Amino acid sequence: MANHKRSKKAGMPPGSLIHVGKKKKHTPKITIFDYNEESFTEKVAKKVEECFPFKERATVTWINIDGVHDSEIIEKLGKHFRFHPLLLEDIMNTEQRPKIDDFGDYLFVVAKMLQYNEQKDQIVEEQISLILGSNFVISFQEQEGDIFDPIRERIRQKKGRVRTMWSDYLVYALMDVIIDNYFIVLEKLGEKIEDVEEELLVNPSQQTLQDTHALKRKMISLRRAIWPLRDVISGMQRTGSVLIKKPTAIYLKDVYDHTVQVIDTIETYRDIISSMLDIYLSGISNKLNEVMKVLTIIGTIFIPLTFITGIHGMNFKFMPELEWKYGYFATLGVMLVIGLLMLLYFKRKRWI
Amino acid sequence: MANHKRSKKAGMPPGSLIHVGKKKKHTPKITIFDYNEESFTEKVAKKVEECFPFKERATVTWINIDGVHDSEIIEKLGKHFRFHPLLLEDIMNTEQRPKIDDFGDYLFVVAKMLQYNEQKDQIVEEQISLILGSNFVISFQEQEGDIFDPIRERIRQKKGRVRTMWSDYLVYALMDVIIDNYFIVLEKLGEKIEDVEEELLVNPSQQTLQDTHALKRKMISLRRAIWPLRDVISGMQRTGSVLIKKPTAIYLKDVYDHTVQVIDTIETYRDIISSMLDIYLSGISNKLNEVMKVLTIIGTIFIPLTFITGIHGMNFKFMPELEWKYGYFATLGVMLVIGLLMLLYFKRKRWI
Amino acid sequence: MANHKRSKKAGMPPGSLIHVGKKKKHTPKITIFDYNEESFTEKVAKKVEECFPFKERATVTWINIDGVHDSEIIEKLGKHFRFHPLLLEDIMNTEQRPKIDDFGDYLFVVAKMLQYNEQKDQIVEEQISLILGSNFVISFQEQEGDIFDPIRERIRQKKGRVRTMWSDYLVYALMDVIIDNYFIVLEKLGEKIEDVEEELLVNPSQQTLQDTHALKRKMISLRRAIWPLRDVISGMQRTGSVLIKKPTAIYLKDVYDHTVQVIDTIETYRDIISSMLDIYLSGISNKLNEVMKVLTIIGTIFIPLTFITGIHGMNFKFMPELEWKYGYFATLGVMLVIGLLMLLYFKRKRWI
Amino acid sequence: MANHKRSKKAGMPPGSLIHVGKKKKHTPKITIFDYNEESFTEKVAKKVEECFPFKERATVTWINIDGVHDSEIIEKLGKHFRFHPLLLEDIMNTEQRPKIDDFGDYLFVVAKMLQYNEQKDQIVEEQISLILGSNFVISFQEQEGDIFDPIRERIRQKKGRVRTMWSDYLVYALMDVIIDNYFIVLEKLGEKIEDVEEELLVNPSQQTLQDTHALKRKMISLRRAIWPLRDVISGMQRTGSVLIKKPTAIYLKDVYDHTVQVIDTIETYRDIISSMLDIYLSGISNKLNEVMKVLTIIGTIFIPLTFITGIHGMNFKFMPELEWKYGYFATLGVMLVIGLLMLLYFKRKRWI
Amino acid sequence: MANHKRSKKAGMPPGSLIHVGKKKKHTPKITIFDYNEESFTEKVAKKVEECFPFKERATVTWINIDGVHDSEIIEKLGKHFRFHPLLLEDIMNTEQRPKIDDFGDYLFVVAKMLQYNEQKDQIVEEQISLILGSNFVISFQEQEGDIFDPIRERIRQKKGRVRTMWSDYLVYALMDVIIDNYFIVLEKLGEKIEDVEEELLVNPSQQTLQDTHALKRKMISLRRAIWPLRDVISGMQRTGSVLIKKPTAIYLKDVYDHTVQVIDTIETYRDIISSMLDIYLSGISNKLNEVMKVLTIIGTIFIPLTFITGIHGMNFKFMPELEWKYGYFATLGVMLVIGLLMLLYFKRKRWI
Repeated sequence: MANHKRSKKAGMPPGSLIHVGKKKKHTPKITIFDYNEESFTEKVAKKVEECFPFKERATVTWINIDGVHDSEIIEKLGKHFRFHPLLLEDIMNTEQRPKIDDFGDYLFVVAKMLQYNEQKDQIVEEQISLILGSNFVISFQEQEGDIFDPIRERIRQKKGRVRTMWSDYLVYALMDVIIDNYFIVLEKLGEKIEDVEEELLVNPSQQTLQDTHALKRKMISLRRAIWPLRDVISGMQRTGSVLIKKPTAIYLKDVYDHTVQVIDTIETYRDIISSMLDIYLSGISNKLNEVMKVLTIIGTIFIPLTFITGIHGMNFKFMPELEWKYGYFATLGVMLVIGLLMLLYFKRKRWI
Repeated sequence: MANHKRSKKAGMPPGSLIHVGKKKKHTPKITIFDYNEESFTEKVAKKVEECFPFKERATVTWINIDGVHDSEIIEKLGKHFRFHPLLLEDIMNTEQRPKIDDFGDYLFVVAKMLQYNEQKDQIVEEQISLILGSNFVISFQEQEGDIFDPIRERIRQKKGRVRTMWSDYLVYALMDVIIDNYFIVLEKLGEKIEDVEEELLVNPSQQTLQDTHALKRKMISLRRAIWPLRDVISGMQRTGSVLIKKPTAIYLKDVYDHTVQVIDTIETYRDIISSMLDIYLSGISNKLNEVMKVLTIIGTIFIPLTFITGIHGMNFKFMPELEWKYGYFATLGVMLVIGLLMLLYFKRKRWI
Repeated sequence: MANHKRSKKAGMPPGSLIHVGKKKKHTPKITIFDYNEESFTEKVAKKVEECFPFKERATVTWINIDGVHDSEIIEKLGKHFRFHPLLLEDIMNTEQRPKIDDFGDYLFVVAKMLQYNEQKDQIVEEQISLILGSNFVISFQEQEGDIFDPIRERIRQKKGRVRTMWSDYLVYALMDVIIDNYFIVLEKLGEKIEDVEEELLVNPSQQTLQDTHALKRKMISLRRAIWPLRDVISGMQRTGSVLIKKPTAIYLKDVYDHTVQVIDTIETYRDIISSMLDIYLSGISNKLNEVMKVLTIIGTIFIPLTFITGIHGMNFKFMPELEWKYGYFATLGVMLVIGLLMLLYFKRKRWI
Repeated sequence: MANHKRSKKAGMPPGSLIHVGKKKKHTPKITIFDYNEESFTEKVAKKVEECFPFKERATVTWINIDGVHDSEIIEKLGKHFRFHPLLLEDIMNTEQRPKIDDFGDYLFVVAKMLQYNEQKDQIVEEQISLILGSNFVISFQEQEGDIFDPIRERIRQKKGRVRTMWSDYLVYALMDVIIDNYFIVLEKLGEKIEDVEEELLVNPSQQTLQDTHALKRKMISLRRAIWPLRDVISGMQRTGSVLIKKPTAIYLKDVYDHTVQVIDTIETYRDIISSMLDIYLSGISNKLNEVMKVLTIIGTIFIPLTFITGIHGMNFKFMPELEWKYGYFATLGVMLVIGLLMLLYFKRKRWI
Repeated sequence: MANHKRSKKAGMPPGSLIHVGKKKKHTPKITIFDYNEESFTEKVAKKVEECFPFKERATVTWINIDGVHDSEIIEKLGKHFRFHPLLLEDIMNTEQRPKIDDFGDYLFVVAKMLQYNEQKDQIVEEQISLILGSNFVISFQEQEGDIFDPIRERIRQKKGRVRTMWSDYLVYALMDVIIDNYFIVLEKLGEKIEDVEEELLVNPSQQTLQDTHALKRKMISLRRAIWPLRDVISGMQRTGSVLIKKPTAIYLKDVYDHTVQVIDTIETYRDIISSMLDIYLSGISNKLNEVMKVLTIIGTIFIPLTFITGIHGMNFKFMPELEWKYGYFATLGVMLVIGLLMLLYFKRKRWI
């Protein structure tokens, strides 16, 4: 099942609704939460049209759509809510970079949700698009997921501040959950790094090198997904849009601090991994040195001795020492002395 | 066929119309599109003078010229449209860096069009110059190409927004197509990188190193062509020129985001390629280690044993053990034991 | 005893009071200093409620709490002093990055206290949170410590300026002590670096490499703890808050200079450490060279000579030279000459 | 002939006229061009005093002085034109960094002229100082040169815009020629790089390494001479001085673009050179691998076989196989089989 | 004689006068210059109190104190001139980073004076503190030195502008001398670099590596001392303080340019040194290659030949070739051919 590639969009007019990303087939699930401090409604919409009435209500409405590959749904929604075509195009293009666009009446935020799949040892990346209007939030996920469940629970049970505040706070809460998930991914990677580092010092092998390399690539992709988020959030803080109310500002600062901390950790990990590669290389060189020392010691001791036996193994008629009674033992003795001297030499050079 | 070099312009007065770049001979093709929401004309001009009447028309006119090596055409056009001599000079110098110049009445944009030639495994670079006036756009390509065909089709068939908007939107659309092409080039390079990486882990050779190096050089040249474009587009956004109308701003933001994403991908690829080189080097060191281990194991086992045979091959008259009945087998036994001990030692050291 | 991890907070509403960091069990100790130029009271509070009356007093009150793992204390305090829930959450999360938050009525500062534990050869990091109100400072440490004792002493004995100035000066004094401690840590590390460098030049071993690597990791973590502090302090300078009075500004500039100096030193150490790794690698290569030279010299001299003995050890019937009277001595002579020529060759090549 | 060093100026009062740079002896040549759109005078001045009358003329005067080692000339000129002593000092110090100083009545610009001396394979650097007054330009070169000849020709023949514009345009034209010369140098270096790269892939030697190193050093010095120029030119653009007239601005932008392009090329070359060094190192490692493989193959095959011959060369009385009729051929057969097995093993390991 | 360490100040109240740096014992020497355009007084003060009357005089007074380890002098001076305690503390702490503090009535500047001690091959660093008041300059050196002598001479002999200008010009003149000294140090280091580079190409040894490393460390410490000075001087330019008069601005710009040039040179040297390390490493690898080639050539030629002699040295009863008349010579011939073929093979591979 081939993925939809970004390149197939080349030449298309802007605003073309083409899904870019992993091919998906499931029918997108649409859930609606509508609430204010007093009331609360939750429903699963079978058709996208069921969302439309909420546009006019004074209460906060959160529409969550699990799936961005169905251009029909996106288009209908976009038409009713009068979203800019470029925004709709961006929702369907899951290779978007995290960003924020201010369209006046609504803000559009793209972020990446990350999860660490331990079985496949992979970081799974999913694009989350959020549209913040004055009385609604629409969120798009690539597939059904449960990371927003804690917020749903909070809304249902009136826990925390979410029911007493506006739509901007809901967007903050969603971003907060996304970023909290980064910490989980980073902690898992941190453990992996420690494992590999341990192995590197104890028993480095070609596999360890490849593990290190895999970690490095993970860091590169993490970085790519998270770095731009910093600008996104500081963009939300400074946007000056009336959609972001005063009391939410301090929460955005908090989520900004978390993002910076995540980035900090990524940079630290990168530093550690790159110095792990240095250690690996020195380790190999050290090993080579050791191997060569063994060969050199053996060779340096026995090659001259073998030469001596060679001398006495020659078949010349006239070789006086061969006739001596203790010639043999004398030769053995000489060889022993030479061998010991060699060993002494190596000891001095601290090779053994 | 030597190229025209930049250096030959040294000392010439500014505004000298000298073609710099690959030597070309074909007659430049001039096509004219003239349109507004209601009407549409398309024609191929035989002489550059045919373009002149369009200067005064209220409709949007798009003049596309395939070839910048003919100074006569450029000069005539420049004279009639009253372009600055430096602008004309820049059009003919195809080693220009992407840039934007605001001349008041018109904007001048230089960008690079990239295509990946799979047969030659090369990235082909072509300079695109765009002049945006209030009611016209003039585009210059180095040679005939078809990347702008989708836009031509959209104009002809009134698809998308292009017919309903102004000349600035046309410039945006051209830029958008150029940048969409970058994604195609990058995807091809991404596949190449994966191939080389695969090879690097499975069966690295001198060729793999050269492939990696070639990829790196491609990245360097890509970077050089695309990085400045970011400033060009943000320059268009902030220029404050009346030529860029409000509704186009959001489209420029979109094309800016794409450029940033392209740059992001390039940087990621650079990171990956540079860590591929590290892997290659460690791979070589590892191999050397293995080679040396084989030699050392063989040498360390057999050199001492050969010494023992040497001892017994000496021709001393008096060597008591030679007379013993089972001296030979005893010696063989001793040698076997020594050999086995050595093997045990290597096993312990995890060399075998 | 597992640590509390940051990840367990994922999905919790903001302001949830969850301790993140090393598990602790001790009962937090609360000490109160209340002073102005004339009067001074010091007491140890058994219950957090004892702090409350000081909130209204005109004198400067310094409440120090040794332990941030008890959410009850933090919550009560927060309620009475009306601190923002996010601030309370940050106090309990000891994996915070150094930062400053301006809440209008009070400033919130997070910094890292560092100590070098020589026995374990570790840098111990502790989070210090400071809340600056108009007439109070509340400081939180992770565990009981004595680094603030000099300030306590100064308050008790009316030494220095602290008793004559406001709460902002107290915060400065606390920060100053924290940063002074960085110098101690850096000096210890500087000594370590010199030790390892010495060893590197005299007798490098695998252990030296690991020591270097450990130093590098220490630098990475130091950097992470201290870099953000620069922005924190310049943030205090530029905050424009009425809580920071004019006369304290020059002191903040001073503490800022110290931070920059600490960062400078860290960067210098990083440079030195990274060039130590280069030296280590060259050292290994040099050693390998030397080892190989020994083997090559021995091999190159004796392998040809052994070949000569081999020739004369062959058992052909007809080998005229074997019959010659001085054949043996002539052969020995030839071998001697060959050996000497080889030595000469090596001398010329400056290998010996 | 020792050079004049910068250090000898230590302790001298500012404005001391001391020549710093390569020792020179020739008498500086002074040429004067005086022109406006209608008239034109050219003369070679024998004494510096001949320049003085031109100070008051309304026409543009260009005084070019080939040689800055004669403090007398500089001093007289400075006195008459009332230049600041620091400016005069800077003219004579040829180790100046490119810079721009705005003295109100006149601008002072320092740039480096570069030429590639192919015989010596060196980049020759010469300092050009320009003083721009409202109706005059004074240029200083270190020695007689002809790079400004094209401009002289243009003035004489009234080609281009130079005769119709002011002194600021003349300064621009001089800068333009200087920067055009950078392209020539870069193209030569580009060719050199390609040569060395070719050699690196085909037949790398110690010499290739030194060539690469030499290229790198050239890049370092180029960079040093050209980088600051960017700030100089953007400084000219933004200076706000009345000396830079509006119509010249677009020309300065053009020359700025060229400088950026030069810098871009330098950075690209640096990247290429540094990856050439990587290739060189991998090449060496590869070669070592190959060398060691040959030794290992030979050694691994013949050392065990020689051991077998050693066994049968022992002189034990009782060695049954020696008596067998086909013992010899059997042994030869066994050795052949062992040898072939070894070869097979190496083939499998892809060593041969 | 242990140095005074920065760490002992931890916990002390700000403004504590503790000497940090190399222990000193000499009595600080105090010299006073008092001058204006007409008059001039010079005296050596025995007690610090002799300086006090000059505070009120309208003439410019320059007090130079050689030694900052005597807290009594500093304190008395500070009290009379009403300097801020932090300033006094900074004077005595000789591990200060170059900086500028604006205290309103006076400016405080810290810089590093550098000298190259050729005997010890060390860069000696000394801290210079300058206090600029409206009618006085107080300079502090760590020990008696003569670098300011040229300025003293200029004051005495009314050379240059110093006598006609204000205290700010004197500070400029002192800074200028300090920075001029950097050029001397850099020139010496430049020579050293050339020496080491020469050696690196001709006859690299372990010592060369250590020399390179020593140069690198020198660069690191130079950088640390000089980099911040740039900000100091641009701080002086932009301070807006009335103490810095208009005519001095152009001189500060000049001294700023010099600092930038020094920094530029340092960066260039760093680049050169780091590419020297690359060359060293490649050199070692090259050498190893050569060594291994010799061994491989010898081994590859003689090991098979020795095997052949081994075959004919076996004692089998039935070995037909041994009986042949010319068997011996035939064997010698075969061995010669094999040897020559091997040589040919190596020649082809360009190993010899």
